[in-house]
Amino acid sequence: MANFQDIKQAAYENNMQLPKLGLVLFTFGNVSVADHAKGVFAIKPSGVPYDNLHPDHMVVVDFEGNIVEGDLRPSSDTKTHAVLYKHWENIGGIVHTHSTYATAWAQSQRDIPLYGTTHADHLTSDIPCAPPMADDMIKGNYEQETGFQILNYFKEKALDYQEVEMILVGNHAPFTWGKTAEKAVYNSAVLETIAHMALLTEQINPNAPRLKDALIKKHFERKHGPDAYYGQ
Amino acid sequence: MANFQDIKQAAYENNMQLPKLGLVLFTFGNVSVADHAKGVFAIKPSGVPYDNLHPDHMVVVDFEGNIVEGDLRPSSDTKTHAVLYKHWENIGGIVHTHSTYATAWAQSQRDIPLYGTTHADHLTSDIPCAPPMADDMIKGNYEQETGFQILNYFKEKALDYQEVEMILVGNHAPFTWGKTAEKAVYNSAVLETIAHMALLTEQINPNAPRLKDALIKKHFERKHGPDAYYGQ
Amino acid sequence: MANFQDIKQAAYENNMQLPKLGLVLFTFGNVSVADHAKGVFAIKPSGVPYDNLHPDHMVVVDFEGNIVEGDLRPSSDTKTHAVLYKHWENIGGIVHTHSTYATAWAQSQRDIPLYGTTHADHLTSDIPCAPPMADDMIKGNYEQETGFQILNYFKEKALDYQEVEMILVGNHAPFTWGKTAEKAVYNSAVLETIAHMALLTEQINPNAPRLKDALIKKHFERKHGPDAYYGQ
Amino acid sequence: MANFQDIKQAAYENNMQLPKLGLVLFTFGNVSVADHAKGVFAIKPSGVPYDNLHPDHMVVVDFEGNIVEGDLRPSSDTKTHAVLYKHWENIGGIVHTHSTYATAWAQSQRDIPLYGTTHADHLTSDIPCAPPMADDMIKGNYEQETGFQILNYFKEKALDYQEVEMILVGNHAPFTWGKTAEKAVYNSAVLETIAHMALLTEQINPNAPRLKDALIKKHFERKHGPDAYYGQ
Repeated sequence: MANFQDIKQAAYENNMQLPKLGLVLFTFGNVSVADHAKGVFAIKPSGVPYDNLHPDHMVVVDFEGNIVEGDLRPSSDTKTHAVLYKHWENIGGIVHTHSTYATAWAQSQRDIPLYGTTHADHLTSDIPCAPPMADDMIKGNYEQETGFQILNYFKEKALDYQEVEMILVGNHAPFTWGKTAEKAVYNSAVLETIAHMALLTEQINPNAPRLKDALIKKHFERKHGPDAYYGQ
Repeated sequence: MANFQDIKQAAYENNMQLPKLGLVLFTFGNVSVADHAKGVFAIKPSGVPYDNLHPDHMVVVDFEGNIVEGDLRPSSDTKTHAVLYKHWENIGGIVHTHSTYATAWAQSQRDIPLYGTTHADHLTSDIPCAPPMADDMIKGNYEQETGFQILNYFKEKALDYQEVEMILVGNHAPFTWGKTAEKAVYNSAVLETIAHMALLTEQINPNAPRLKDALIKKHFERKHGPDAYYGQ
Repeated sequence: MANFQDIKQAAYENNMQLPKLGLVLFTFGNVSVADHAKGVFAIKPSGVPYDNLHPDHMVVVDFEGNIVEGDLRPSSDTKTHAVLYKHWENIGGIVHTHSTYATAWAQSQRDIPLYGTTHADHLTSDIPCAPPMADDMIKGNYEQETGFQILNYFKEKALDYQEVEMILVGNHAPFTWGKTAEKAVYNSAVLETIAHMALLTEQINPNAPRLKDALIKKHFERKHGPDAYYGQ
Repeated sequence: MANFQDIKQAAYENNMQLPKLGLVLFTFGNVSVADHAKGVFAIKPSGVPYDNLHPDHMVVVDFEGNIVEGDLRPSSDTKTHAVLYKHWENIGGIVHTHSTYATAWAQSQRDIPLYGTTHADHLTSDIPCAPPMADDMIKGNYEQETGFQILNYFKEKALDYQEVEMILVGNHAPFTWGKTAEKAVYNSAVLETIAHMALLTEQINPNAPRLKDALIKKHFERKHGPDAYYGQ
């Protein structure tokens, strides 16, 4: 079997960012890193404290959810990651957390309204909240079905996973992704901040309007448009 | 008298986790560790700052609340611990804190509704809030009666202390427990996070529904059921 | 003039606790330590960052507010401290902060209701909020009048400064005191936590009742009564 | 071309204060330092993480927004800074952040009411929130127009930029400034605290009154009036 050292190392390093960024309590989160050429991803083992984590603990899994390398049981959310990698070929990393504010929005089953430019710098729509899954999906292959719930909600709302790199799963918690695991981790921290600010905005002004279209477009394009001028 | 070094050391180490996890201000909390074979537990001395704490300071007490070993006065909540150990033979550790969000729910005299999977991963019911005690219980052996208030509320609500490892005592603050003190400390941190998220959920959506039954069952069973697949 | 090294050292050490406890931003706070036998107190100089503070910077002032020793200008709140020391002979330290939650209650001009045992462990009444001062008091010797506003409010409400060691000055911020500066600093941190929990309690349950009398009495007496059994 | 080492060093040091003070996530903020004699300012490069920042990375720009020295692209907000320096000759530093509470007020499109002396110690008016910009301003030279939006709102409200050193740009986030960059950074932290306290005040008492005039005047003058007696 091949050498997956690079994705295991990357998965390790990005998992270690979650407690640093204040996004996880104990083991409530996981990061995976994919190698699409080899059809596999490396993911955190289930329930192992971050303090004890080592690159060699990472479990390598294929896009059907089968273990390819590793002595430990992979994260219980592994099949959700597998479904997303299988269908979205341009994502290189996925993050799942139970970060406080994003999870509270997921529990409240509301999309996060686009209230300001901090949000628009990252995506031009509300942050979607998929509804809780149907009972038969839950009773079946639950974590795999969670992946399909995400895919289906993106289709239903006509969202592009390369433009909207985050979702709340209703009653559960957020998933984020990106071209790289670094970007996916970045998105998790950004989501948590946007979720916090959005609640505060509604508390300060229950009638706060959504961001006007001209500002949505401007802020997104200066970071992501053809003439982007943010960053180096 | 016997050598209680193991439970004193364990009580010390677990007490030291409380300030690390942000669950206590000054001395507002205590952890105990039981040895059911010997019929005793070790508990933090009363009012000693965490910075000055040493394993030898731990006080060893029997399940009637009598001091067996130790030069210092034990935590003022000692008799509550004693009652719980005496009646619940399968718990090895108990934690009491005044952590901010859990205490606020206790002061509000409300159970914490089961709003999401973070909660369901740990227990399948609302987190119970025992009502404030009757005046004659308060005027009597108050801390012992607090233990009976907890026992009685579990009986009244038909809760199993091995499935629900936490309670709010109305107007007062939370108690948690577990097979080990490590688990009891873990439960205190989990409770604080669930308490925070539940308030935020109600602020984001005052009509947020409780978690649907299928999800409650699924999340609890994947961690605790016969086919549990969380952790190693 | 005498050697005030002991109160200067104590004032320095207790001032340094404020940023450690998260109670001050920049220089928004001050601690003083009194020597009633000599009729003086040592207080933080005005506007000096905590990082640069040294015991020798402390300014020694008498109970009329006159500088007795020191090269720097004392805290702008010095005359408030002087009035309290002059009239309340049993206090050895005073703390003033603009800590977030206590200040928000002061700005809202409400007493903090006694909602739980965390509060009752420290005092048996609501935490008083003195009304904003009359215009002529403000235009006059403002900081001295702030001291009288506190004294007068305690008289009006028949509060005992040895039982209630804290107050909110309406629209302004909290003052706390105690037999020692250590106790006064402790009270400032306790007040901030009680202020935070009280707001959360009202958010969780707008109809949360005040603590029942039996519990108020019990919790206060186990810490402060003739048969107190908290601490060593 | 001249040697701009002093303003580059100062810009670097003040930028590094933002993460220390908890005012920025990732790269969501920037500080600039002006040399009015030379007609230039040094500003953070765009999108460079604080951990990697070095004084030599700072970009020197003139008051029209043209790069004078530096290999990196300057902050995307550079033209906003340029407009303010060009028209307000007595400011030496500008700070832009997306700090959580100040940004939430900007998103809610409300001025922050003057509720207490913490606020009055720094300015005697509500903290202004400029309305979101007109669509043609947004589609045009957006960052430059943001500068004009600020200038125009100060004119419209007859505010003096030397007395009111902060503004919220509606739907966007805060800008602060001062005679020095140190003062501008200080103002950003003060603004965040005032924004937090003001929301809490309204939550504790929805009918909280604004600060009375006598107190506004007193607190501002003791820090800033001709007979100021705060600080050394």
